[in-house]
Amino acid sequence: MNIIIAMDSMKSALTSEAANRIIADIVTTRGHHALSFTMADGGEGTAEAFMSGQSDGEWCHVVTVSPAFKKIEAKYGWVPTEKTAYIDVSAASGIQYASADTHPLNRTSAGTGHLMRDALDKGAQKIVLGLGGSATIDGGIGLVTVLGGQFFNRRGERLQGCGADLGEVAYIDLSLLDKRLANTTIIGASDVTNPLIGENGAVRVFGAQKGLLPDEEIAYDEAMQHYLEVATGALTSEAGDGAAGGIGFALRFFLKGQLQSGATMLVEANQLQEALETADLLITGEGRMDSQSLMGKLPITLARQAKAAKVPVIAFVGGFEGDVAAVASEGIRAVVPIVQGPVTIPEAISAAATNLAAAVERTFILLEWE
Amino acid sequence: MNIIIAMDSMKSALTSEAANRIIADIVTTRGHHALSFTMADGGEGTAEAFMSGQSDGEWCHVVTVSPAFKKIEAKYGWVPTEKTAYIDVSAASGIQYASADTHPLNRTSAGTGHLMRDALDKGAQKIVLGLGGSATIDGGIGLVTVLGGQFFNRRGERLQGCGADLGEVAYIDLSLLDKRLANTTIIGASDVTNPLIGENGAVRVFGAQKGLLPDEEIAYDEAMQHYLEVATGALTSEAGDGAAGGIGFALRFFLKGQLQSGATMLVEANQLQEALETADLLITGEGRMDSQSLMGKLPITLARQAKAAKVPVIAFVGGFEGDVAAVASEGIRAVVPIVQGPVTIPEAISAAATNLAAAVERTFILLEWE
Repeated sequence: MNIIIAMDSMKSALTSEAANRIIADIVTTRGHHALSFTMADGGEGTAEAFMSGQSDGEWCHVVTVSPAFKKIEAKYGWVPTEKTAYIDVSAASGIQYASADTHPLNRTSAGTGHLMRDALDKGAQKIVLGLGGSATIDGGIGLVTVLGGQFFNRRGERLQGCGADLGEVAYIDLSLLDKRLANTTIIGASDVTNPLIGENGAVRVFGAQKGLLPDEEIAYDEAMQHYLEVATGALTSEAGDGAAGGIGFALRFFLKGQLQSGATMLVEANQLQEALETADLLITGEGRMDSQSLMGKLPITLARQAKAAKVPVIAFVGGFEGDVAAVASEGIRAVVPIVQGPVTIPEAISAAATNLAAAVERTFILLEWE
Repeated sequence: MNIIIAMDSMKSALTSEAANRIIADIVTTRGHHALSFTMADGGEGTAEAFMSGQSDGEWCHVVTVSPAFKKIEAKYGWVPTEKTAYIDVSAASGIQYASADTHPLNRTSAGTGHLMRDALDKGAQKIVLGLGGSATIDGGIGLVTVLGGQFFNRRGERLQGCGADLGEVAYIDLSLLDKRLANTTIIGASDVTNPLIGENGAVRVFGAQKGLLPDEEIAYDEAMQHYLEVATGALTSEAGDGAAGGIGFALRFFLKGQLQSGATMLVEANQLQEALETADLLITGEGRMDSQSLMGKLPITLARQAKAAKVPVIAFVGGFEGDVAAVASEGIRAVVPIVQGPVTIPEAISAAATNLAAAVERTFILLEWE
């Protein structure tokens, strides 16, 4: 068979590349032809996935700040021929920097702003930001501040740009915003469609995984509402504004950027659609497939492309919770969970490579049954 | 396809019959022909599995005693035309009666003895005992006592027959043993090959799951050694003697019974071998497949029969831990774990029916791939 392999990362367990390699080794040993594409859905590894499709890309290492305003080094991808930068929000503002002693109130997205400014210094005409895996819920104030935006409180003092500033903002001045931004296409690659505020917003849906306590959510969301109202004069936000603790909103509203599906962008950037024309099978998968997966995450995006090309899809997943029929209707003919028995999440993570290999072997034994 | 379905029970989750029915429903809906056999491996449900193959069997409800010497009602299977009784040790002496307030030291297998005596009263010429799922570790003293054996301590007092008596036995008198036993074939159907004593014995291997604490094992095993030595004059026991807390030993040594593989007996009793001649696939499985499974438990026993008949085997399991190659060499071409993600054992148990159905659907989608 001609097999396309395009696994999303299995969070904390396997990168897209590692998962692809495990599968490719097995299917080629069994006599199939494999073509692998490194994938991401806007989350961690998005820049890497874009860069894997580039022949002349390079990684730029830049001194910037962590969510706690500490000096760190972070990297982003740069493709000189296209004057395009691929920046993961998680590179400088990621959840890996969230320790117990920093609270989302004290965290900033400024570090991502520094990477963007470095890209502008290089002459970037396009900046693609992967919006997953952030530790911050600052509505993008930190990022915009680094790029020249000014946020003042009611005493006329300039705010430094962290979560605690959301409720303090009284006036916003964009007159000193970096002029180069006007000639730069800003794209937020995102796997979420959440608005900035409310029940489905940046605070209520993603706050807990960034360390916000349940009884802090209401007040935090009210501060975010205040910020939205000061910025836009209203209380309405758009789908995707809630990505990366509100960076989605800042990109769209202050920087005139667009939000796009990271999965779709990668599928297009990677010429995967061409490959589908001669493929007999597409293999994809992710750490956890559930009802959220149906809202534009990578495997479903790929499955839709494959369905259009009449190529059947098998998805290998760390865990599955959802409606088989709904997944099937998107073109995924079989969802194969890779766990081998009742285990804890840490156990599943540490056995992910072994389990994936076993599941792939088992699946091909059944596929090749005679 | 012509499919034989012969699932072992998935402990605490699905009986053999329930698991078979789930699978049969799916495969017949998909256009295959299914022939189901109720299975057991000597553990709980063994009597029921034997009875499911009988047209004239009946269930006898008998007043007997629990492992704590409390009055209970228990049932056994009786086939009048064959004058054969099918008795599960778990029916009267099962782990379901083990509460926190009874210790293995205070538990008796007497209840099983009462069921056997009832069968003798009915005129049994053959008694098949399923040796799994017991709560007792009394070396079978309780059972033998009910059947007329007498165990004395060094003060000449008769022992009632519980775990604490093992270390007390000084003299054994079998002269009053029920005479009818001499004309009765006693068969212990067992899924284990453990000896009575030592590292692999009844105490050290199965004590913990009956509530014995780790620091009690050495002394308990020494008491069992004492009992073995008083009974046989030596410290050697045979494979299977350790079944059901030593009932295996009591059947073999005091009642001149034989121990046989419950799985093999059922395969033969059920004419499964005949069915294999025209089968394209055998589906089996169990709750947990691991290195123990390779020691004569049901799925492997079935797989060996199927291998001899050149019928491929798929096993659905609650959890798999072991060597795929070893299992494959016994004839199981694919082991399919049914869990759908990282879950606790109670979660896996409560979702077993759903998970089994999903795994079977998925497997047949792959099998029928085109």
